[in-house]
Amino acid sequence: MNEEKQRKLAIICSKGSLDMAYPGMVLANAALMSGIEVHMFFTFWGLDMITERKMDHLKITPLGNPSMGMPNLLSILPGMTAMATSMMKKEIAKLDFPPVREFLQMIVDAGGHLYGCKMSMDMMKLTKDDLFPGVERVLGAMEFMEISEGAQIIFI
Amino acid sequence: MNEEKQRKLAIICSKGSLDMAYPGMVLANAALMSGIEVHMFFTFWGLDMITERKMDHLKITPLGNPSMGMPNLLSILPGMTAMATSMMKKEIAKLDFPPVREFLQMIVDAGGHLYGCKMSMDMMKLTKDDLFPGVERVLGAMEFMEISEGAQIIFI
Amino acid sequence: MNEEKQRKLAIICSKGSLDMAYPGMVLANAALMSGIEVHMFFTFWGLDMITERKMDHLKITPLGNPSMGMPNLLSILPGMTAMATSMMKKEIAKLDFPPVREFLQMIVDAGGHLYGCKMSMDMMKLTKDDLFPGVERVLGAMEFMEISEGAQIIFI
Repeated sequence: MNEEKQRKLAIICSKGSLDMAYPGMVLANAALMSGIEVHMFFTFWGLDMITERKMDHLKITPLGNPSMGMPNLLSILPGMTAMATSMMKKEIAKLDFPPVREFLQMIVDAGGHLYGCKMSMDMMKLTKDDLFPGVERVLGAMEFMEISEGAQIIFI
Repeated sequence: MNEEKQRKLAIICSKGSLDMAYPGMVLANAALMSGIEVHMFFTFWGLDMITERKMDHLKITPLGNPSMGMPNLLSILPGMTAMATSMMKKEIAKLDFPPVREFLQMIVDAGGHLYGCKMSMDMMKLTKDDLFPGVERVLGAMEFMEISEGAQIIFI
Repeated sequence: MNEEKQRKLAIICSKGSLDMAYPGMVLANAALMSGIEVHMFFTFWGLDMITERKMDHLKITPLGNPSMGMPNLLSILPGMTAMATSMMKKEIAKLDFPPVREFLQMIVDAGGHLYGCKMSMDMMKLTKDDLFPGVERVLGAMEFMEISEGAQIIFI
């Protein structure tokens, strides 16, 4: 990276679970506060993070995540996903991190750029109108290549 | 990144599920069409993407993925993985994206380089003969370091 | 990347499962052996890799991972996670890769830097005393931005 050039971060968000939504937003926010140019590209399940009817209801499941330490037979019971989600939301709030919608708005207000992935949107039958208004535009993969030129790329 | 130098993308594919196979191929394809040098390194579960007897049968499971919106108790029923897989394959075909084997062949034909990870192959008792013929060679992690010098690295 | 400058790798480890713990350590080790500066940042579930009471007991689950080829109804049975974990540990040992603790110590001894993520530690109520002694220090996201300047960033 040339010192003379503006440092740039391109974050690809491909997961729609609550625990994997935060790392991208935390990194984007820290980068913006450090004067780094930030581009967030939402693809596949990551589209949930910017889809109006889903972004306020992201979940976390103990299923298939041995780090959550819940026995598999227990983790499939109804209510376990809701319980884990509610616990994580409380922990996030305690740390003064905002919910997804507010956090993304903060990122936009700080100059961060949000993009939806065209291919994923077509697959999930979403249009720009289904997305969070903070989303700047919908991009194809080749346009992402252009925008991420010279950037540090993080795929989450 | 120096403007004078060829832009390079190194994609590490570590997942063997259908939904996480496509992002790497879509990015590789877009990069090649943009004139970017592309290296794909298949490791751990990602080896499934280039293993002859598995690459045509990648699956997707609703289990442990809250974005798919299926209750856990339902998602463990026999047939659910097959159903989700078949649905996703149809959606991918509708978007005119080819199946995994054809997509990788397109990438190779466009000049992309595919490599198997030696350590993972040893662990799974695979030899070069078990792999898709488009795979250029088998690399150790240190050789990957050499090849990825100056590249944007994406770990999927 | 300027040829004149030291090549640098920043690895963000966000997963606490055994299969996703190794890729970061293998890459870090290969990078160090290639003379590359290495920074490992442990966040979210990745904190398990450096938490004293957890790092020797990382698990792998066949649940939600179609690559492991176990039917969902079977994979939730008690004992399946333990069985898969024990099998993978044997395979790793056969390849002469050390267990997590020893591997991280090797990385530290070779000059690699390990950091805990402050936000995740607060969320999980961990202090520096709960961490593996090889961890250099606890970092906020903005400090990570500083350290990763000019680095190739890998998010696992």
